[in-house]
Amino acid sequence: MIELIAFDADDTLWHNEPFYQESKEKLKSLLSSSLDPDLVAETLDRIEIRNIEFFGYGIKSFVLSMIEASIQLTDGQIKGSEIEKIIGFAKEMLQFNLQLFDGVEAVLAEMSSTYKLMLITKGDQFEQERKIARSGLGAYFKYIEIVGEKSPTSYLRLLEKYGFSPEGFLMIGNSLKSDILPVLDIGGQAIYIPYHSTWAHEYLEAEVVAHYHYDEVERIGWIPEVVRRMA
Amino acid sequence: MIELIAFDADDTLWHNEPFYQESKEKLKSLLSSSLDPDLVAETLDRIEIRNIEFFGYGIKSFVLSMIEASIQLTDGQIKGSEIEKIIGFAKEMLQFNLQLFDGVEAVLAEMSSTYKLMLITKGDQFEQERKIARSGLGAYFKYIEIVGEKSPTSYLRLLEKYGFSPEGFLMIGNSLKSDILPVLDIGGQAIYIPYHSTWAHEYLEAEVVAHYHYDEVERIGWIPEVVRRMA
Repeated sequence: MIELIAFDADDTLWHNEPFYQESKEKLKSLLSSSLDPDLVAETLDRIEIRNIEFFGYGIKSFVLSMIEASIQLTDGQIKGSEIEKIIGFAKEMLQFNLQLFDGVEAVLAEMSSTYKLMLITKGDQFEQERKIARSGLGAYFKYIEIVGEKSPTSYLRLLEKYGFSPEGFLMIGNSLKSDILPVLDIGGQAIYIPYHSTWAHEYLEAEVVAHYHYDEVERIGWIPEVVRRMA
Repeated sequence: MIELIAFDADDTLWHNEPFYQESKEKLKSLLSSSLDPDLVAETLDRIEIRNIEFFGYGIKSFVLSMIEASIQLTDGQIKGSEIEKIIGFAKEMLQFNLQLFDGVEAVLAEMSSTYKLMLITKGDQFEQERKIARSGLGAYFKYIEIVGEKSPTSYLRLLEKYGFSPEGFLMIGNSLKSDILPVLDIGGQAIYIPYHSTWAHEYLEAEVVAHYHYDEVERIGWIPEVVRRMA
């Protein structure tokens, strides 16, 4: 019996990855006079993933990676005035309007009348708190948790903290790696809502995924119906 | 009667501000061929405080401010290779060994046998989680909270979340602005442990502070004795 339903936030409740893609396109344009756009993208992806260890997730970490990529790609010749533009991309990202997916609020309103809801998001505390506040969705969640990593251990720790068992736990999100597989690993249930663009870091091989059983829905609006069938 | 004792972390349990000061000195050296060190420090302080709105607290925010300051001070002429060094300062800061204050562990061991302890720290989730893990002090705290701001409202929200009243709450920390005054404002108690260097942003005018009553101790080792007298 489901007792607790948790939602991921970025690219599950609202659009997020497109803003990163947009900044990446701007970086390619900025460096396009002398550099191949594909090389820019590859270098950035590599530095971004390496920098998680130092800087974690979020826009600040991303902008530092964009700066490092631009320095590396120009052999240190890029000027401060260009790097200032890159910092400007990050400040724009932080001020974008949040775009909720269609029907999100209705789904949360309905689900919160029957279940305890939790928001579990990975990333930068400061940025995520600000997005939650702007989303206007905070009141639907009994628990809001911003975590460093989404691993089986971190999910278990969260459930223990609030006294829930994995068997009564359902997680909903757009990342197989972060939202779905670790929850199935601890004996919980999960619903996967794929998003059209997925960050390279969240990518998983098909063979890994093939061993897991989970529901997949195309849009968040279908969640209440799927949960009714599960319950 | 005290039910819950909360500690700030940075510059209360372990040294933090000196690492920022050290990076600031490195930035002054890096720019010293053409620029007055005092001007570098003033510009950085100003940009740092302005950037809190965009980037929040922590090392990533600080390094972005150092980069912006260096760009502004050189009229955009600084080169990528120099900015790479600035990013290197941040990576070093993230890898410094944590230095606990003398007696911290004994104090926490003693206090946690009588009271529920909470760690309340402002800053970047990723960095703070890492510091807490490295400190080895996590187990003494029943609750660990990393918050965006320390205001009367945010303290009230935390107390409510765990069902404590402000009257039974004692906060211990090194910042009058963040740890002491907002707690007194909501009817809690507070003990101030001054630290030798305080970040400009945490500075308060003497007239503001004069209206408040709180205990002040010189070192954390004295906390158990002061709490016994309060109780």
